[in-house]
Amino acid sequence: MPRFKLTIEYDGTPFSGWQRQKTRPSVQQTLEGAIEQMTGETVTLQAAGRTDAGVHALGQVAHVDLTRDWDPFQVREGLNHLMRPKPVGIVAAELVADTFEARFSATARHYEYRILNRRTPAILERNQVWHVYKPLDAEIMDEAASLILGHHDFTTFRSTECQSNSPMKTLDVLTVRREHDHIVVNASARSFLHHQVRSMVGCLKLVGEGKWTPADFRAALDARNRSHCRAMAPSDGLYLTRVDY
Amino acid sequence: MPRFKLTIEYDGTPFSGWQRQKTRPSVQQTLEGAIEQMTGETVTLQAAGRTDAGVHALGQVAHVDLTRDWDPFQVREGLNHLMRPKPVGIVAAELVADTFEARFSATARHYEYRILNRRTPAILERNQVWHVYKPLDAEIMDEAASLILGHHDFTTFRSTECQSNSPMKTLDVLTVRREHDHIVVNASARSFLHHQVRSMVGCLKLVGEGKWTPADFRAALDARNRSHCRAMAPSDGLYLTRVDY
Repeated sequence: MPRFKLTIEYDGTPFSGWQRQKTRPSVQQTLEGAIEQMTGETVTLQAAGRTDAGVHALGQVAHVDLTRDWDPFQVREGLNHLMRPKPVGIVAAELVADTFEARFSATARHYEYRILNRRTPAILERNQVWHVYKPLDAEIMDEAASLILGHHDFTTFRSTECQSNSPMKTLDVLTVRREHDHIVVNASARSFLHHQVRSMVGCLKLVGEGKWTPADFRAALDARNRSHCRAMAPSDGLYLTRVDY
Repeated sequence: MPRFKLTIEYDGTPFSGWQRQKTRPSVQQTLEGAIEQMTGETVTLQAAGRTDAGVHALGQVAHVDLTRDWDPFQVREGLNHLMRPKPVGIVAAELVADTFEARFSATARHYEYRILNRRTPAILERNQVWHVYKPLDAEIMDEAASLILGHHDFTTFRSTECQSNSPMKTLDVLTVRREHDHIVVNASARSFLHHQVRSMVGCLKLVGEGKWTPADFRAALDARNRSHCRAMAPSDGLYLTRVDY
């Protein structure tokens, strides 16, 4: 059966997250429903990252096997048509080898976290940023961020519900910069623990407002204890931007 | 009476435009309602640009006279609180001289028009861009744009309902550039005619897709005839970004 790689953009606001849930609509269910409408096949998508409720994606990746040899162009156009007006879109559809696994073949996942840092609430970016009205110092946040790069036990920055076997991860990129009224955090790793990016950003905010020093941020990591994670950023500002293979 | 200058951001999607209307809510009505709630005064706001239904603003400017000598910080915070969750926000509130007129003192108005130029519909930017799926050539659009700079009769690019006394305007900036999947048009002038930016962008799109040459675009201007405006861009992609005084 031909395997298709789908690159997906979505606004996470109305969804329960990527994964199928019984109560609220999910991105997975929206996509699988459109695939069934188009092909008549009941499929299960495998995604690179199971994003939480409210988390957005510019470049989520999933794969699916279809019995027919569809033209990838038709797959993209057909699914985009069928999913309207739900805020999910196929940015790219490609035929891939059947050894390709959206989740397991990924070599890097890239996330961006956007904070709107001004007094005025988010207007044009409602639900798409974290509104922090106290001034944040992006430079000291960036300094703190650099202190936790590398291979570590990230238990402090991991949800207690995380299902990963090990808390050991290698963080390759964690940067913070200011863009006018925005603070932009970029994080890259082969893989992340559940809530890892939002936990790191929540604690970086404490550094940015002067409640923590960069050393406090590093000490939180070293504590390897979830109770040392004193703040978690909301889902609104988080974007899965790209997955590398 | 102290005069206040308000700098305003809004998502134009749910509104009938800036101006009060009998049928649908307007930005003006939303703001005047909040001012009345806060001060007990019934006021009429004067704005720099009366944006149409669906047009957005990052830096609309309006002025209002209040009887009490309010702290500008309180004005901003109070109005932002009262307008929630409507997508209108005060970015800045300042005390100004009573000679200041939001509309008549303006020396330049800056607009940005955003086109999403890819096959996939707008997802995270729904209602905030014009989705054009055919590839556009930003360079030739920019070349065409440069041909109509300066002082001209802009009748071709003017709504038949425009109430301006004269079709003569001086266009100071009209540039087109590509930013990844986006085509960004910037336009600046002391003032614009009704529908001028959307009319110019609509015709620049014809140039970008190869239906018109840059010379055709210039010839449309020279025709000084509304029927030569062959396309008008929708309101979704238009932003009033800044007003200078």
